[in-house]
Amino acid sequence: MILDQIQKENDIKKIKPEEYEELAREIRRFLVDKVSRTGGHLASNLGAVELTMALHICLTLPKDKIVWDVGHQSYVHKILTGRKDMFDSLRQYGGLSGFPKRRESEFDTFNTGHSSTSISAALGLVVADEQVNGNDSTIVAVIGDGAMTGGMALEAINNASKLKRNFIIILNDNEMSISHNVGGFSTYLSNARAGETYIELKSGVQRTLEKIPGAGDKIVRSIKRTKHSIKQLLVPGMLFENLGITYLGPVDGHNTNALIRIINEAKNIDHAVLIHVVTKKGKGYGPAMENPSLFHGIGPFNPRTGLPVAPATGKTYTEVFSDALVREAEKDEKIIAITAAMADGTGLVKFQEQFPRRFFDVGIAEEHAVTFAAGLAVGGLRPFVAIYSSFLQRAYDQILHDVCIQNLPVIFCVDRAGLVGNDGETHQGIFDISFLSSIPNMNILAPKNAAELDEAITFAATFNAPLAIRYPRGRAYTGLSQFVAPICFGKSEVLYLEKDIAILSVGSMIETAVKVRNSLKEQGKNVTLVNARFVKPIDEEMIHSLLSSHRYIITIEENVINGGYGMAVLRYINNCDTDVKVINFAIPNSYIEQGSKNEQLAECGLDVSSILQRLDMELK
Amino acid sequence: MILDQIQKENDIKKIKPEEYEELAREIRRFLVDKVSRTGGHLASNLGAVELTMALHICLTLPKDKIVWDVGHQSYVHKILTGRKDMFDSLRQYGGLSGFPKRRESEFDTFNTGHSSTSISAALGLVVADEQVNGNDSTIVAVIGDGAMTGGMALEAINNASKLKRNFIIILNDNEMSISHNVGGFSTYLSNARAGETYIELKSGVQRTLEKIPGAGDKIVRSIKRTKHSIKQLLVPGMLFENLGITYLGPVDGHNTNALIRIINEAKNIDHAVLIHVVTKKGKGYGPAMENPSLFHGIGPFNPRTGLPVAPATGKTYTEVFSDALVREAEKDEKIIAITAAMADGTGLVKFQEQFPRRFFDVGIAEEHAVTFAAGLAVGGLRPFVAIYSSFLQRAYDQILHDVCIQNLPVIFCVDRAGLVGNDGETHQGIFDISFLSSIPNMNILAPKNAAELDEAITFAATFNAPLAIRYPRGRAYTGLSQFVAPICFGKSEVLYLEKDIAILSVGSMIETAVKVRNSLKEQGKNVTLVNARFVKPIDEEMIHSLLSSHRYIITIEENVINGGYGMAVLRYINNCDTDVKVINFAIPNSYIEQGSKNEQLAECGLDVSSILQRLDMELK
Repeated sequence: MILDQIQKENDIKKIKPEEYEELAREIRRFLVDKVSRTGGHLASNLGAVELTMALHICLTLPKDKIVWDVGHQSYVHKILTGRKDMFDSLRQYGGLSGFPKRRESEFDTFNTGHSSTSISAALGLVVADEQVNGNDSTIVAVIGDGAMTGGMALEAINNASKLKRNFIIILNDNEMSISHNVGGFSTYLSNARAGETYIELKSGVQRTLEKIPGAGDKIVRSIKRTKHSIKQLLVPGMLFENLGITYLGPVDGHNTNALIRIINEAKNIDHAVLIHVVTKKGKGYGPAMENPSLFHGIGPFNPRTGLPVAPATGKTYTEVFSDALVREAEKDEKIIAITAAMADGTGLVKFQEQFPRRFFDVGIAEEHAVTFAAGLAVGGLRPFVAIYSSFLQRAYDQILHDVCIQNLPVIFCVDRAGLVGNDGETHQGIFDISFLSSIPNMNILAPKNAAELDEAITFAATFNAPLAIRYPRGRAYTGLSQFVAPICFGKSEVLYLEKDIAILSVGSMIETAVKVRNSLKEQGKNVTLVNARFVKPIDEEMIHSLLSSHRYIITIEENVINGGYGMAVLRYINNCDTDVKVINFAIPNSYIEQGSKNEQLAECGLDVSSILQRLDMELK
Repeated sequence: MILDQIQKENDIKKIKPEEYEELAREIRRFLVDKVSRTGGHLASNLGAVELTMALHICLTLPKDKIVWDVGHQSYVHKILTGRKDMFDSLRQYGGLSGFPKRRESEFDTFNTGHSSTSISAALGLVVADEQVNGNDSTIVAVIGDGAMTGGMALEAINNASKLKRNFIIILNDNEMSISHNVGGFSTYLSNARAGETYIELKSGVQRTLEKIPGAGDKIVRSIKRTKHSIKQLLVPGMLFENLGITYLGPVDGHNTNALIRIINEAKNIDHAVLIHVVTKKGKGYGPAMENPSLFHGIGPFNPRTGLPVAPATGKTYTEVFSDALVREAEKDEKIIAITAAMADGTGLVKFQEQFPRRFFDVGIAEEHAVTFAAGLAVGGLRPFVAIYSSFLQRAYDQILHDVCIQNLPVIFCVDRAGLVGNDGETHQGIFDISFLSSIPNMNILAPKNAAELDEAITFAATFNAPLAIRYPRGRAYTGLSQFVAPICFGKSEVLYLEKDIAILSVGSMIETAVKVRNSLKEQGKNVTLVNARFVKPIDEEMIHSLLSSHRYIITIEENVINGGYGMAVLRYINNCDTDVKVINFAIPNSYIEQGSKNEQLAECGLDVSSILQRLDMELK
């Protein structure tokens, strides 16, 4: 195997050019083999094999630095920097991260996970190299076409143009981000790819041309004759060149030698330069090429067939949401659905198919998504914005400033709220209760099970203020189906009313709360169990009613302790004249690394046995 | 007066074209007269007189809608929509808002205050008009050249290109935002303004041209001969046209008739169109034209001289920060300063003058500012990012995901933290403790007075983790100068140690806390007073030491109650075995409207007498 010759960084430089193709094949086989066992991001890595090889051939690590945008395409980079043997632990608890991580390797320059950060971060490295090392390094940001539509990437491009030294931006254009790309930039790129942007000699342009004294007619005739060449000349980099960035490309992203030539050319440019690399997501693996969206992030699968090893059992919360929203949208044509490049992940594909005119994929642009929704609400529509908890962090100001000051009926469908498992700390949805709770006029609802999420969507469809509905990743809980108290604004649902000890459980923690209660009951204790349901506002009346008959109020939530539900409950009780003791269970204020969700819950002291252990000490 | 004929919306349509110039003059006199008494945003309104007139002439309100980006240029719009007589109350408590406000008038389509939101919001209105009203309205977003560099504006542009109906974006290009503009986009615009963008016939381009079979040479010669005209043809709208937006302009923003012609032309376009309007900030008022930055937002001034009515007394916190950072930067050349288009406001002009190579104004791009700083820190530099509290909300995810996961030494200098007075709810800096406290690895320091802010900057210069230093708008408190305990990480400063009652005061609330203590002392009570100093982490050791000798612990902070300092203290004490009662004073979880800071404090129950009143009930 050629791959065996690569044991550490820069070893790839010893490989002969005629072996590049075979090496790429071996890397692809390695990726499919490993990821089929652990799960992970496959399609984007298969698409970046030659690009990563070329970068490692042209650069010298760790002096030179690569910042991978999002970072889920960094597996090949890990293979080429001495981490090949760690792939069996990919994305497992304590194992190899699925994203670049500085703590893992000095060749991972900057931690990523969220989209569109690479150019900003790399610009910081460029300036540091300038001021600290005297311009010793080549710095490269690798960013996808989807990520490029994120606002901060464009802010960074605007700043990159000021540089007076080399900086290489690689636009890894695979004609899609996670879903299909959208918007003017996408159209522009797809024309650039085909070498067909501009200039169609619109009539206005032609008139102006003809007016040029003397030569006007001739120019028009020349251009018409040579239209194709003129296009090649005027395109495809104009957009970037207008912003002060030199453009090179497009180049075939699966031709290692062509990539090496263009990267070396880019290294000689004394300011910011963008290389437009055209790649194919899933390249070289049939099932991933056919369905790159499915193979974007995938669990273990059969490498021969591409089919998942563990077939899905039961509906996910995402699917429950998906069906419920379509049903409500059938009843009310004012309902609009918005996603930020995650139609699949957030379950909006059905909605899109059924109501294409009422569906908006704004690209990776959470900020725009939220303020756009605010505008829709002002105009009398009912926007549902579906965004993962961790990505909604991007729109904190827009929620606070554009939606909530005006108290607009925008519904936030906060998927992946809570611990998310193998993606690790960048993707944890454990802050939303805190940051949303800090916002006046915001309301937060966390359903206990599938049926309640379904009802929450119905409730939201006629609710006249900002509302966030948070629900976790994965299979929807279907237990406790006997409890179907209708959703009333601000009201919790009391499941079992006893005395002495009361457990207030937030959303997804209900399964755990039930088990904790059962154990306490076995110990002969009396235990009230409440489904908090509304996280903001909290149900003060319900809490007050518990005070006289209970000694302990226990809160359990899948969110950091600071600013969470438990704190709101504690604050209320502190203002009452009572001796009731509040015990809060929540995620400590720290980043929780990759692993299974159960491993993460245990680490946070949020599994049944940890909770019981602590209660054993605290309950007298 | 012509202006007297305009009593309500659309009245301007009755004014004769030959009277436009005089009307503009009258409006400018009105603006200078009114704003000189109340204070407000003057320069941007003076620059937008003819543009606003032309919009009101071409549109029919309220059917047609204008979204003003940021909104501080909306005074003329208010004058023309029946609010002329309210200008004596401009920005006063209960008076006319300095920003568009839907509650104030049906002609204010969308509340604004922060930058770069208008295109997103207006796109929402466009889609709503399409789906609800059958495309009945003309929708216009008016955005400055500075605001256009904000990421979400670019996200919105990318989405606007998909429209299949009219939508007008007016780029109000005054060659500056608040500070001077920066970056590739700014250069692009300034070339467009002069009609000189592209195409310099770079040698590469020329070579390609010459290769065109047959006519190549001729084209090169023609282009060379007619360079200027070709430029006109190829520019200035290429950047926008590449993104799928039709470009009109540039047009003189002080020629009402020219503006009317181009707006009417734009109304006929069946997709998104951008009009490039060139204006002069401060137009028509000498002092504002000479110093548009000073007259961006200004207090009452003498209209004849342009000089402030109330001369500054004593240093502001911003000035203390400014001097301290320059001093530290002289000692450590690794210190870098970053502003997002607020060099003046954040006090970084001195730093810029002294260390131009170490100063970065990234434009209105808070997200990029923060991740760029993270990159600098990874590269070994010591970035200080100075951003107003309310604008830092934009970068919540970048702080959490790019700075704090990697635990990088980025220093956030959070100016305008707390209540800000006349700008009102969009600009209140009352959420930063909450949103920053939710972030693991983040540390927060709030100095009690000028000297302590000064020392905090010194402390920060060698601190090796993320740190936010929050300080309020306005004059720096210089009292309590006898207390100079050196800053130790995580430690509070005990000013008076007595027993029974302890007041824990956060930063700016110390003046109030001292007065509250004095009153309680006069009532014969024993009162400990602590300068919390570190808001995160809280000083648990100090708090614990108080428990045995105190019955009450009182927290006072200028931040919303949810997720604030008081909650962290309460949580700690709740976990101790104690009967000490915690009483939290903070801002209620609501938006606080414009007024003087004292009026706002009173509204929040944070003035001395409100605090004493409540304590009178709670202390037994």
